[in-house]
Order: sequence, then C-alpha cells, then structure tokens
Amino acid sequence: MTYCVGLVLDRGLVLMSDTRTNAGLDNISTFRKLTVFKKPGDRVISMMTAGNLATTQSVISLLEERTKAPEDREPSIFAAPSMFQVARLVADTLREVIARQKDSGQRADSAFNATIILGGQIADGPTRLFLIYPEGNFIEAGRDTPYFQIGETKYGRPILVRAYDPAMSFEAAVKLLLVSFDSTIKANLSVGAPLDVLLYEEGTLDAAEPLRITANDPYFRSISDGWGDALRTAFYSLPDIDLDAVHDETAG
Amino acid sequence: MTYCVGLVLDRGLVLMSDTRTNAGLDNISTFRKLTVFKKPGDRVISMMTAGNLATTQSVISLLEERTKAPEDREPSIFAAPSMFQVARLVADTLREVIARQKDSGQRADSAFNATIILGGQIADGPTRLFLIYPEGNFIEAGRDTPYFQIGETKYGRPILVRAYDPAMSFEAAVKLLLVSFDSTIKANLSVGAPLDVLLYEEGTLDAAEPLRITANDPYFRSISDGWGDALRTAFYSLPDIDLDAVHDETAG
Repeated sequence: MTYCVGLVLDRGLVLMSDTRTNAGLDNISTFRKLTVFKKPGDRVISMMTAGNLATTQSVISLLEERTKAPEDREPSIFAAPSMFQVARLVADTLREVIARQKDSGQRADSAFNATIILGGQIADGPTRLFLIYPEGNFIEAGRDTPYFQIGETKYGRPILVRAYDPAMSFEAAVKLLLVSFDSTIKANLSVGAPLDVLLYEEGTLDAAEPLRITANDPYFRSISDGWGDALRTAFYSLPDIDLDAVHDETAG
Repeated sequence: MTYCVGLVLDRGLVLMSDTRTNAGLDNISTFRKLTVFKKPGDRVISMMTAGNLATTQSVISLLEERTKAPEDREPSIFAAPSMFQVARLVADTLREVIARQKDSGQRADSAFNATIILGGQIADGPTRLFLIYPEGNFIEAGRDTPYFQIGETKYGRPILVRAYDPAMSFEAAVKLLLVSFDSTIKANLSVGAPLDVLLYEEGTLDAAEPLRITANDPYFRSISDGWGDALRTAFYSLPDIDLDAVHDETAG
C-alpha cells in the first residue's frame, strides 16, 4: 500500500508521499514515490504514484526517457504546452504500461494497476492538480475538492476534511499532512516513513528539492506525540451526554 | 456497509451500531443491527452484525427460535452456561447459515458473509466481548485490544485509538463513539443514522432498552459541529514547522 496526498492552496501546491512498498508483510522496501520534473523558469511538474511498483517505475522511466530525446517524435512532458496535455500524456503512458503487462499474458496476485497524482504549473498557465486512473482517464481538483489522496486514504481523511483551508500557509499544510500521515502510519503497516514533501509556490516555476522527513525527525515526533494529547483535550472539551435525560425521554 | 463498535470498559460494555443497509447506492434501508437477549438477573447477551443482511437476519432468527422452544434439543443462548459457550453457538449458527446459502448453489455479487460482535455477561461470570468471523471462529477482546469494530472501520479508528480509556464513564464512551461514527458517516454514504446504543453495567445482569440517536438529535448535532471546531483548535495548537531551518539542513 501507499499513502500520498496532494493539496491545492492559494499559494501553490503541497505534495506528500510515504516511501514504503511491500510485496507481502515480509517483503518491505523503501522507494521514492514522488518525482519532480522541472525546467526552472518554464515548468515544474510533479507526480506521486500508488499501486504496482513495476508499473509506476516503468511509467516514470518512459516519461524520463522521452524527455532525454528531444529530437524523438514521441511527445515529452517538457514539450507539452499545458498541464492538461501533460496529464493526457501521463495517463496514456500509464494505460499503455498496464495494457502491455496484461496483454503479454502476465499474471499476478495483485493487479498491475496504478494511480497517479499529477500537479504543477507551466509558464503562465494556472497551477493544476490531477488524479489519473489506471484506465487512462483523469479528473482535476477544483474549488469543491481541492485535494486528492491515493493509496490508504481512509484513516487520514477526517482531519483533512475538517482542517484543510485553501488560505493556509505551507507550514500549516505540512503540519496538516503530517497529522494525516501519522494517523495512517499508526493504523496500516504498509504505509511508512520517511516521507517526501514537495512545496511549490505558484508563479515561481521552480522548486527546491523535496524535503525528506524521517520517522525520527524531531518535528514529526513532536506532531505525532502532540496530536494525541491535543485530540484528547479536544475530545474532553466537548459536552457529555445526559444519559438520565435520554433514558427518561426514551421511556416517555 | 455498516459500522459497529463494541467497547469493554471497567464499568461494563458500550455497543453502538448504525442502521443503514444498502444493496447498491439506490437501494438503501434502515434495519436494526443491534439485538439484545436478556433474562434479568441471569444474563444479558447482545449482538451487532455486519455483512449480508439475509445472513445476519437468519442467524438472529435461528437463535431466537431456539430460545422459544426450551424442550427442544437444540442448544439455546438462554441455556448456555457461559459467554464462551454462547460465542461458540453463535459462531456455529453463523457458519451454518453461510454454508447453507453457498451449498444451495446461490450466487450473489457480494458474498453471503457476515461478522458479529457479541458481548454480555452470564450470572457470576465475567463480562466478555467477542468478534465472530464468517468462518465460525472468534477472538475475544483483552486488555491490549479492548474494543472491536466491524464494517467500515477505518475512518473512525484514529480517535478510538487515541481517546479510548478503560476507566472512562458511559457518558464519555458515548461521546467517543459519536465522534467516531460522525467521522465515518461524513465519509461513507453506506453508514447512516439513526444509531443504536446499548449500555451494560457489569454485574447488573439487566439492561435498559438501547438508546436510539437520530441524525437530528440535538446532542449528536452538538458533537458533530463541536468536533470540527475542537479538531481545528487542536490542530492549530500544534507548533508549525520551521521550513527555512529544514531547507538549510537539507542543503547542508
């Protein structure tokens, strides 16, 4: 499993992914699932992948190869004129890779499927965030759903739904994602640190290297420990039910 | 889908279940999933069911029929000498019902499977809580895992893990479960109010009728609304990350 979240904020994009992969409980590894393609001043394109690792690595490798042969006829994500065209390209590549594995008669217990979160900005176009399905189609984040999750999405969703705010700072967004990831990591063994984080400030058309947050990172530890206490405080701040009144009502 | 939680507290048991059943998105109904068998002064036995509704209703009906024919040779949950024997009886009944449906050649898109949380107390035995699997085996809650969830368990789990305390009052336990259910209801359309709640005080060998909490219940509404605010307050009480320091570290 995997857990990745992409947030659209007023000031840009924040993407966070875990790095654990597993083929069974006794075969776990660490792989980067966050990839950044950038050409400073022209574009920043980032992808996070969930699903079959062979599929996702193959997709990223194909996309990379195509960028390195500009004379090639193949379309490249460095040549695509818009984020929408990039999304089509990535989606087509994903579908092709899955189809090739299936058509060659390969069989696996788990499917060859994969899902991709794609975000970025090209030139003076808007910053956009897409969710690409294994079928090769995709949806875009909008005002009503300004974030996407892939992988083990459920444990970490309630805090996202409650605390996300498009106006939040990058600092607050990283905190929000760490809380969401912490709940997920605590509940699902197949999601694990270190975590990769990309911060993209809209309009800069450049981005620093993704941050890597380890399990022992002091800030992550302070969030993980502090969140338990803060949750309990929040919980006890809510009023208690008056059971006698309810019983009377039920009886009456 | 369904969501049911059973908690073991120092003072007894608290069971909560939703009441929504669905066969597809456009075929939803309300059914009680919490059943109580009691013989005041002797025993209180309660069950919550998740899974195929035909299966779970059939199990409950079989158990009920057997209690009404005491001369019958069939074992009855009113005759079983201990909660362990009740668990075996319920588990066997569940396995039989599933096997009969499968053996008769019936086919369904969804499986005939069901899962049951069983809790209660008989005479001077201890209060016990079991989770019964469709295979007909079961596990018991202990000190390390003092609660069970069935159905759509993921969204509501983080708050249970963080705020459960065996010494908590019934009032606090109801509040905890309402928070957990509220997160689940907000995220999964197939879990819905009204909610049924059974409170069983250890040693009383009797229980009031389960409370029914509707979607418009003022207390439930206050928890649902208040929890969003409390979560945001808790979230903003945590320290922000110092991104400049992290970037320096990464660069260094």
